[in-house]
Amino acid sequence: MLVAFAGGVGAARMLRGLVDVMDPAEIVAVVNTGDDVVLHGLHISPDLDTVTYTLADAINPDTGWGLAGESWAAMESLAAYGDGQAAWFRLGDRDLGTHLYRTNRLAAGAPLSQVTAEITQRWGIGIKLLPMSDDPFETRITVAGHEIGFQEYFVGLHHEVAVEAVAFRGAAQARPGPGVLAAIDRAERLLICPSNPIVSIGPILAVPGIRPALEARRADTVAVSPIVGGRALKGPADHMLAELGHEVSVVGVARLYAPLAATLVIDEADAGLAGAVEAEGMVAVVTATVMTGPAEAAALARTVLSDQAGERAAS
Amino acid sequence: MLVAFAGGVGAARMLRGLVDVMDPAEIVAVVNTGDDVVLHGLHISPDLDTVTYTLADAINPDTGWGLAGESWAAMESLAAYGDGQAAWFRLGDRDLGTHLYRTNRLAAGAPLSQVTAEITQRWGIGIKLLPMSDDPFETRITVAGHEIGFQEYFVGLHHEVAVEAVAFRGAAQARPGPGVLAAIDRAERLLICPSNPIVSIGPILAVPGIRPALEARRADTVAVSPIVGGRALKGPADHMLAELGHEVSVVGVARLYAPLAATLVIDEADAGLAGAVEAEGMVAVVTATVMTGPAEAAALARTVLSDQAGERAAS
Repeated sequence: MLVAFAGGVGAARMLRGLVDVMDPAEIVAVVNTGDDVVLHGLHISPDLDTVTYTLADAINPDTGWGLAGESWAAMESLAAYGDGQAAWFRLGDRDLGTHLYRTNRLAAGAPLSQVTAEITQRWGIGIKLLPMSDDPFETRITVAGHEIGFQEYFVGLHHEVAVEAVAFRGAAQARPGPGVLAAIDRAERLLICPSNPIVSIGPILAVPGIRPALEARRADTVAVSPIVGGRALKGPADHMLAELGHEVSVVGVARLYAPLAATLVIDEADAGLAGAVEAEGMVAVVTATVMTGPAEAAALARTVLSDQAGERAAS
Repeated sequence: MLVAFAGGVGAARMLRGLVDVMDPAEIVAVVNTGDDVVLHGLHISPDLDTVTYTLADAINPDTGWGLAGESWAAMESLAAYGDGQAAWFRLGDRDLGTHLYRTNRLAAGAPLSQVTAEITQRWGIGIKLLPMSDDPFETRITVAGHEIGFQEYFVGLHHEVAVEAVAFRGAAQARPGPGVLAAIDRAERLLICPSNPIVSIGPILAVPGIRPALEARRADTVAVSPIVGGRALKGPADHMLAELGHEVSVVGVARLYAPLAATLVIDEADAGLAGAVEAEGMVAVVTATVMTGPAEAAALARTVLSDQAGERAAS
């Protein structure tokens, strides 16, 4: 059984590759919910939905989020009222159905983990998605001296402003979602997906109990670097790492992940840094990590699962 | 200036007739909000929306609620999750935009009256719509010994079950919406629209202060009977009146409205009951009241505004 720690787009593509090369029933993804937000009265779980829609082959391939072939009647109607949120946070009509369902079920008292199981069942996702926590947890970003919600930063400000601090509101009280710690304990291999270390993987690790559980499985844990050639393939990970004082390279990633994972998979573009990664205490596995399509994702998945990654880490 | 007390479909058609025969800027409609409901996390105001969409000539003519030419992508998506609410309470995509806007604005602290002004402005409604109250107010229906929400009864059970009791939760604490009492005081004529006396007009009268204000204007108040030939043209008013011990006729309506209105406009079908209506202390005006189209609605509006209704009442 494999346990993957997942944010949004990068993790979704990694998981899409994994289901092509192993039994989906043997995959558990622990997904970041720090991005979750209530907008227009609706509970939105961006990372859970991106992973779900991607695995269902229903994702909008152009944006990496939302559903392919969407209509936008509700947002156009909302925008006609001059609503500012419609302008910056657009939800497609079919996507709205997901948020309406989740909001309904949460209001009826169902925990997010249960609702997530229902949503993934409807989409026929073979793998199990576990929200990192059923409890309130909010990633907050400080920009220009003001703390704002993650989506305001990420979507509203197009993550173009410098991040001064990241805070996880509710982290101290949050409990790991049902099954999360047991899955970490039981997994044969664990994978930190190529997601933003600060705001995708960081929130998961900030849920009390998850980081020590993962540290205990360090030898069996493989991370895939979200930084390739000193840049993030998608999103603000590169800027954010720099702004928060980290080196923007696979070596910087290795410094963050060395206590958690024995192996770091880095791109061929970073082959020259393999020695520096190993100097940080991680085994460096060099391969093509850019998932331009399903074939590339599957190839990367095979590497993650390979004896190469596992045995070198165990040695 | 005319103040109209309004529920949903019947009132909307009456108001649509009025704007054809008088200056819309001289019309204030005090609208029932006892039907308002939070569903799927969204604040829905059925009567306000029915009146707004009807006056904007945007109403779905087949249903009498919702928008013409709607798409249903969000509801179809929601229904695919097996959501029970999607099955019984359907919201079109463009209509959802209205509810998203209202929910957003209320969450931002705007009172319903302010949000209603914004929504009606977007639709270019000439008349002023005043929610009866900005405060929480919930019409509850007892059926088979159980108290349920109004929409569960009206939409969910298709108002086909016997009503044992009607209760107005929050009524004691509710205050009249901004401008409601002043409009009642200042009006030259007041109109009780052909809406359900129990669950459309009843909630408005249950807001402390509104009933005495209306009673003080009895001489200038005209009611249009929602009962024609012993039946309601739409909705459960006939059943409900009977189930709650009222006579299902214009005479029964006269008994309810005699303390509030000097005049009752009744349909030609009920001409034979004019004397019985007058025996209840109301002036009976007999005319065609069935608003099958704009022309009929305008003709009824002219009667409501006529010296006949006013002078006979004042005599």
